[in-house]
Amino acid sequence: MSKFEEVQKICLSRGILYPTAEIYSALSGFYDYGNIGTMLKRKVVDLWREIFVRMSPVTVLEIDGCVILPENVFVASGHLKNFSDPITQCKKCKTVFRADHLIEEATNEFVEGKSPSELTEILRKNNIRCQKCGGELEDAKIFNLMLKTEISPAGGQTAYMRPETCQNIFSGFQRIYKTSRAKLPFGIAQVGHAFRNEISPRQFIIRLREFNQCELEMFIDPSKPGCPIEEVLGKEITFLTREAQKKGEEAIRISIKDAIKEKIFPSDWIPYFLAKELEFYVALGIPEDCLRIRHLLPEETAHYSLGNFDLEIKYDFGWKETVSNAARGDYDLKSHMKQSGQDLTVLMDDGSKVLPHVIEPSFGLERTIAAVLYHAFTEDKERGWNWFKFPAKLSPYTAGIFPLVSKDNMPEVAREIYDDLRKDFDVFYDEKGSIGKRYARADEIGTAFCITVDSQTLSDKTVTLRNRNDGKQVRIKSDDLAAELGKMIK
Amino acid sequence: MSKFEEVQKICLSRGILYPTAEIYSALSGFYDYGNIGTMLKRKVVDLWREIFVRMSPVTVLEIDGCVILPENVFVASGHLKNFSDPITQCKKCKTVFRADHLIEEATNEFVEGKSPSELTEILRKNNIRCQKCGGELEDAKIFNLMLKTEISPAGGQTAYMRPETCQNIFSGFQRIYKTSRAKLPFGIAQVGHAFRNEISPRQFIIRLREFNQCELEMFIDPSKPGCPIEEVLGKEITFLTREAQKKGEEAIRISIKDAIKEKIFPSDWIPYFLAKELEFYVALGIPEDCLRIRHLLPEETAHYSLGNFDLEIKYDFGWKETVSNAARGDYDLKSHMKQSGQDLTVLMDDGSKVLPHVIEPSFGLERTIAAVLYHAFTEDKERGWNWFKFPAKLSPYTAGIFPLVSKDNMPEVAREIYDDLRKDFDVFYDEKGSIGKRYARADEIGTAFCITVDSQTLSDKTVTLRNRNDGKQVRIKSDDLAAELGKMIK
Repeated sequence: MSKFEEVQKICLSRGILYPTAEIYSALSGFYDYGNIGTMLKRKVVDLWREIFVRMSPVTVLEIDGCVILPENVFVASGHLKNFSDPITQCKKCKTVFRADHLIEEATNEFVEGKSPSELTEILRKNNIRCQKCGGELEDAKIFNLMLKTEISPAGGQTAYMRPETCQNIFSGFQRIYKTSRAKLPFGIAQVGHAFRNEISPRQFIIRLREFNQCELEMFIDPSKPGCPIEEVLGKEITFLTREAQKKGEEAIRISIKDAIKEKIFPSDWIPYFLAKELEFYVALGIPEDCLRIRHLLPEETAHYSLGNFDLEIKYDFGWKETVSNAARGDYDLKSHMKQSGQDLTVLMDDGSKVLPHVIEPSFGLERTIAAVLYHAFTEDKERGWNWFKFPAKLSPYTAGIFPLVSKDNMPEVAREIYDDLRKDFDVFYDEKGSIGKRYARADEIGTAFCITVDSQTLSDKTVTLRNRNDGKQVRIKSDDLAAELGKMIK
Repeated sequence: MSKFEEVQKICLSRGILYPTAEIYSALSGFYDYGNIGTMLKRKVVDLWREIFVRMSPVTVLEIDGCVILPENVFVASGHLKNFSDPITQCKKCKTVFRADHLIEEATNEFVEGKSPSELTEILRKNNIRCQKCGGELEDAKIFNLMLKTEISPAGGQTAYMRPETCQNIFSGFQRIYKTSRAKLPFGIAQVGHAFRNEISPRQFIIRLREFNQCELEMFIDPSKPGCPIEEVLGKEITFLTREAQKKGEEAIRISIKDAIKEKIFPSDWIPYFLAKELEFYVALGIPEDCLRIRHLLPEETAHYSLGNFDLEIKYDFGWKETVSNAARGDYDLKSHMKQSGQDLTVLMDDGSKVLPHVIEPSFGLERTIAAVLYHAFTEDKERGWNWFKFPAKLSPYTAGIFPLVSKDNMPEVAREIYDDLRKDFDVFYDEKGSIGKRYARADEIGTAFCITVDSQTLSDKTVTLRNRNDGKQVRIKSDDLAAELGKMIK
């Protein structure tokens, strides 16, 4: 079993993440967070918010909008017309495939951007057939990936589940700008659900039909971008250039300062965000050598984009896109301005009007969580059980509290400590089984610390505090626990 | 303008809440939270989580699931068959109405539960016509309130946007129970989006098509419910009995202990949650005399329910249901057990199997937030501006930091304080306009404190700390600000 499969297995067996409504084994591409997963998700989002919203050197406003949006929004964004994949269906067993993926797997030919008739021709020419039953394939056709619904009881009001969270930001831009008194540059951020009717959901929570994004749109005056780039100039990144990709070469290490000199980036805001993203993922516990930046090839880049850069994370099956960074020009606001007939320009101090440009870092939250789980997962033959080495701040439970034995008033004292700590921390109480088994269970869900009440506690009010990462124990006063845990998760 | 309309107006003008994609003025019943609203929502949810999840005397596990669920879930839950309203459409102007509401408004007759043909007869008998154009109405018919979508690219996989969050809890119960090692009684909670295709969304965020719920399902062994009722026996509630409703009488004040003696409640867990809910809403700043409990009438109660009790909150337009409490028996798990063919019973310590019963408090999050906004809204002629008296803990921004004037190093010192405080608090920096104007702007979005750096700060490192509620200022050392704010929001 690969490490990725091991992680998936433990997620299921510990209720971290499991298929939605699995007793009906009905829909693929949907996962629910169990209680351990919910706490982990919350802490990952909190850290994202801290770095990208609250501590941002320029104002970032967070909003929280509806997932159902009216059709007009997607006429403007282009999703109604362009957000689609080419598919082909087996005439015999009716399985649906991504036509481009079938071709790429069979021929190693890169066919992104080709039309359905071109893809059909390539399918025929190479005699590509159904992967499941060997049957003949239908002609390739276009399938829109948005999920559709009808709102009005009288009929006729079509709406869509947003395929990306940012459309609330663009369609609400005027209101947010006018009511916030923010000046360019400023950001608008959102964390929430997005939906894509993927043809083949796969790889656990890597490709889902319902997922979460953390998106940030930085609105800038292109003539005066106001990027605090000096903060990150010294930072080194692992960078896969377009040239290296064409030649099949490795990524290079380069400082942001030197990369900017090479004129790789359409705006300083791109390397600024790349540096912040690396800081975020390192804080999440991903090793630096498992993080790289890839400059997307021209054929992978939307016509309006001034440049796209992915942050990728390494797994046993390869590198996976986790953050997409795009310099989107004024495409978004211009499209919504045209479609809505509303003025979305911004009044500058000198009286002029500017239609802001947008720099967008877009984080896949489930891909982020998959990376956190994967890189925290520690196979440990010596200890006798596998465990998650989450950073203390992210650990679903900060601590478990155990009475060494269930007698001599130890459970009562341990419960008192539990009741005190849970005012400020996510902690649990456990008195079942040997202390070794309780350590194992705590480690398996990535609990940062174990606190044990033993006979000495009853005489001197000290407890043992065990650190999950090295298994070492120290004795500390129970009155100091809150301060100590607080320090550890800062 | 009524107070409720005033609140709605300030929400729009301050970007607290605004119609989704409003530049397209497309769909009614959808609102986005702007940045002030987002912070308020997060703090309301945090307080809910603290009271109902983290500090619960029995284990409560929080999950976070998908909003799209497969059709089978709603076959089991009964929503596919029963989650519908009777509607009638004007033959002339095509407006759609709730048939029962039209009748109730025209005749004062209570018609909940009547069939479409019965409603049609009443419409005809009373010659009820279109409220908009006076046109003739179609026969009443049943309209399912769930939003539908199609998942599979090959077609035929129908799914629904969940109309209540709890269906993830019931359909995931087996997994959550088996992986958590919890023993009855234990709760499973969830906060998230729900969707209802309401015929007439209205009253700002009171009746929405997309909204949020905070739901908790307490799973109990009915023969041994294990409710910590003793915690709340002394608590008094304002209670509207069924008898009082029939006779048109007022609610009574009664202690939980006395109400239990009257055998009003199907389980001690109901009054336990009612008491906790009152504690929650008082902590949210709702005056106790604007909170009451209503025992739902038999005709308002589902056939399987052992009793329903609403927590209602008072507005200028009347009382509004905000939390629904239901003793659901084993209806939910039994239905899912039957539909899925899976064993959803729980193994007890004595080896016997129990199908847990469910007590469900279900909170409307937007209704909660509407109540918080409404009851915090303070018209203040003396001060010269209206403001929100949110409890400090809930205030979107805990503090604003201002330099008295934009010179003499005051902005730099104020920014240093801002950068220090925002590590732990939601704070903003503002240097534009007179200090009075900045106080007004801070008050209008319910900022709990204003911190001003003045000339004295430069010599003795003290600042003024102004309390929004009484406008009073004290001088404190800037080094003590974090501790002081921390204490205030506890």
